[in-house]
Amino acid sequence: MADQDAQSPVGIEPPALPVLRWAESPEGPAALVLLDQTRLPTEETELVCTDVPALVRAIRTLAVRGAPLLGIAGAYGVALAAARRDDVAGAAELLERARPTAVNLGYGVRRAERAYREAVARGAGPERAAAVALAEARALHQEDAEASGRMARYGLALLDELLPRGGHRLLTHCNTGALVSGGKGTAFAVALAAHRERRLRQLWVDETRPLLQGARLTAYEAARNAMPYSLLTDNAAGSLFAAGEVDAVLIGADRIAADGSVANKVGSYPLAVLAKYHHVPFIVVAPTTTVDLDTADGASIVVEQRSGVEVTELTSPRAGVPGESAGGVLVAPAGTRAYNPAFDVTPPELITAIVTEEGAVSPVTRAGLAELCARSSQVTIS
Amino acid sequence: MADQDAQSPVGIEPPALPVLRWAESPEGPAALVLLDQTRLPTEETELVCTDVPALVRAIRTLAVRGAPLLGIAGAYGVALAAARRDDVAGAAELLERARPTAVNLGYGVRRAERAYREAVARGAGPERAAAVALAEARALHQEDAEASGRMARYGLALLDELLPRGGHRLLTHCNTGALVSGGKGTAFAVALAAHRERRLRQLWVDETRPLLQGARLTAYEAARNAMPYSLLTDNAAGSLFAAGEVDAVLIGADRIAADGSVANKVGSYPLAVLAKYHHVPFIVVAPTTTVDLDTADGASIVVEQRSGVEVTELTSPRAGVPGESAGGVLVAPAGTRAYNPAFDVTPPELITAIVTEEGAVSPVTRAGLAELCARSSQVTIS
Repeated sequence: MADQDAQSPVGIEPPALPVLRWAESPEGPAALVLLDQTRLPTEETELVCTDVPALVRAIRTLAVRGAPLLGIAGAYGVALAAARRDDVAGAAELLERARPTAVNLGYGVRRAERAYREAVARGAGPERAAAVALAEARALHQEDAEASGRMARYGLALLDELLPRGGHRLLTHCNTGALVSGGKGTAFAVALAAHRERRLRQLWVDETRPLLQGARLTAYEAARNAMPYSLLTDNAAGSLFAAGEVDAVLIGADRIAADGSVANKVGSYPLAVLAKYHHVPFIVVAPTTTVDLDTADGASIVVEQRSGVEVTELTSPRAGVPGESAGGVLVAPAGTRAYNPAFDVTPPELITAIVTEEGAVSPVTRAGLAELCARSSQVTIS
Repeated sequence: MADQDAQSPVGIEPPALPVLRWAESPEGPAALVLLDQTRLPTEETELVCTDVPALVRAIRTLAVRGAPLLGIAGAYGVALAAARRDDVAGAAELLERARPTAVNLGYGVRRAERAYREAVARGAGPERAAAVALAEARALHQEDAEASGRMARYGLALLDELLPRGGHRLLTHCNTGALVSGGKGTAFAVALAAHRERRLRQLWVDETRPLLQGARLTAYEAARNAMPYSLLTDNAAGSLFAAGEVDAVLIGADRIAADGSVANKVGSYPLAVLAKYHHVPFIVVAPTTTVDLDTADGASIVVEQRSGVEVTELTSPRAGVPGESAGGVLVAPAGTRAYNPAFDVTPPELITAIVTEEGAVSPVTRAGLAELCARSSQVTIS
């Protein structure tokens, strides 16, 4: 197997993506260094955030994005405020409010902030408390990487059970790979595991309008990993279902309510309806930190509404010309208003299974989800 | 009512769009002059086709598009070949093959070519036969304009019957307005009629990837007519259905098989599935010339597969800079393959009604459709 891998691109693991790292030198100030995801796939550019407002901007512009990674970034953001001796509680509030839907952001922020606060309460000085906050961020980062590996294993086992014939043809939406995670990601990590085990026949990649995370990021990760993939416009997925070309849908999640309703990138819900109509499994892959037992149901999830400009203007990723304007080109008549929800909500009855690092729940029930969360070793933040 | 109209943009009818016209002067050669739809909404540019290869290019690049208009353009194309004393049968074959899915193209071409051939058979000289072909194209053009008006009336009556509360919130896909027709269009003409009668509360406009006919063309027509409209990415329609914001879906058609299966712009089928799931009427509006009784069912419809470059590159409409390159910007990794069907097929069981210029058929049955076609005054071409 090792020999075979050495000869085949299937087994070649590309170098890890420099998605997010903490930078500190004895002389220089601390910084959170991000891979600027708005520049992919044309440029791999680092974005250095030396304070929390810079990080909040990076979160809002989606330079850093994806539910698990937002949690990690949020925790490091608190550590950054602490390292700078800034107002840590204020910074935590700013960070938590940067985007409303992904529960992980608030989770990461509150977890690092609580660690900091408890250290202070125990009498730690600013330097020691900052070190505690940083250690908490690092712990979350590491836990997320491990959770990713476990989700991939549970997800692949579920696929093999649902699709015993193998040769999986999987459809995915948005980006849920190494770019959103301390590890290999969520839904994408399952597809990648299938690929490594030579059971992936095709990965169908939704381009994911308006910001094209599928085209720009998932295709980029699929290409890096030499996976068999094809890109499609979001509205072409229907033709694939009708032609029987999709064996399962795999998506991530930004917030999972206690009843199993899943908020995820806009376009997930139509896929769930299509999957139901075509009797195709619809699988959500997310760490238990994405489950929010305090949100009772789908109707209680706040969906972020983003600027209509994302729809009315095409903003290309940088084409490799330094200094080039990132301004968009208007594709609709001037003055056109656009409806631009960033997420939609899929009810549990349309979801075949939710896969977490603690295992899968199928069918998706309130009790089953609560049990998985109770089993989780993740630190609880209330 | 007249006074009220004079004060309100609802009643102001914008000047007709110069979508397609035959140009001929005693000295100059004949030409078909098209509004170049690839440049909209930023530029209203005329494209002058003086021979059939130029028209075929205009059809392939979608400078002229939309099922009814393709029929009209095809008929004028035959007239153009005849006026130039070119090989008319060869030109007709080239035109008919320019795009495979819209049945109207072949209908218009064959109708003008038959008129020409019959004139020749009756002993007409080249000039007289060319005049006969042109007269046939003009008749088709005029018939289409009239059919458009009748479809609008039948469609609005159906809407009022299905939605007696009024205040219609209609969702449409692709472009089906004056830009595809000798008149006001098909599905869009119904929405426009609702607007003129003050019964349109909202027109939801799908942007329609990959070529953004919704954003570029439907929004442009909606704005010209002062209609209340909002643009959305195709995958945001699911959220609107879930929120109960869509009262009916109105789309056009490129080919309707004898069983009532409808080939239309890719993304129509997912809307039909969503509409079914949400118990929202899904209405197809098309002239009887779009019905192809020789195509037995949906599986027999040939769906045009277009270049993946339309998906992997963003090609903006001209931004008003003369001479600017229309080349696209790569948004996916180099080498990415894309699945890019231009159309999808919606089966009759997902369609509430098909509205033609001869009335509506609902439920959609083979017999009902055949009866409408038999009633049609359109010239039959076998």
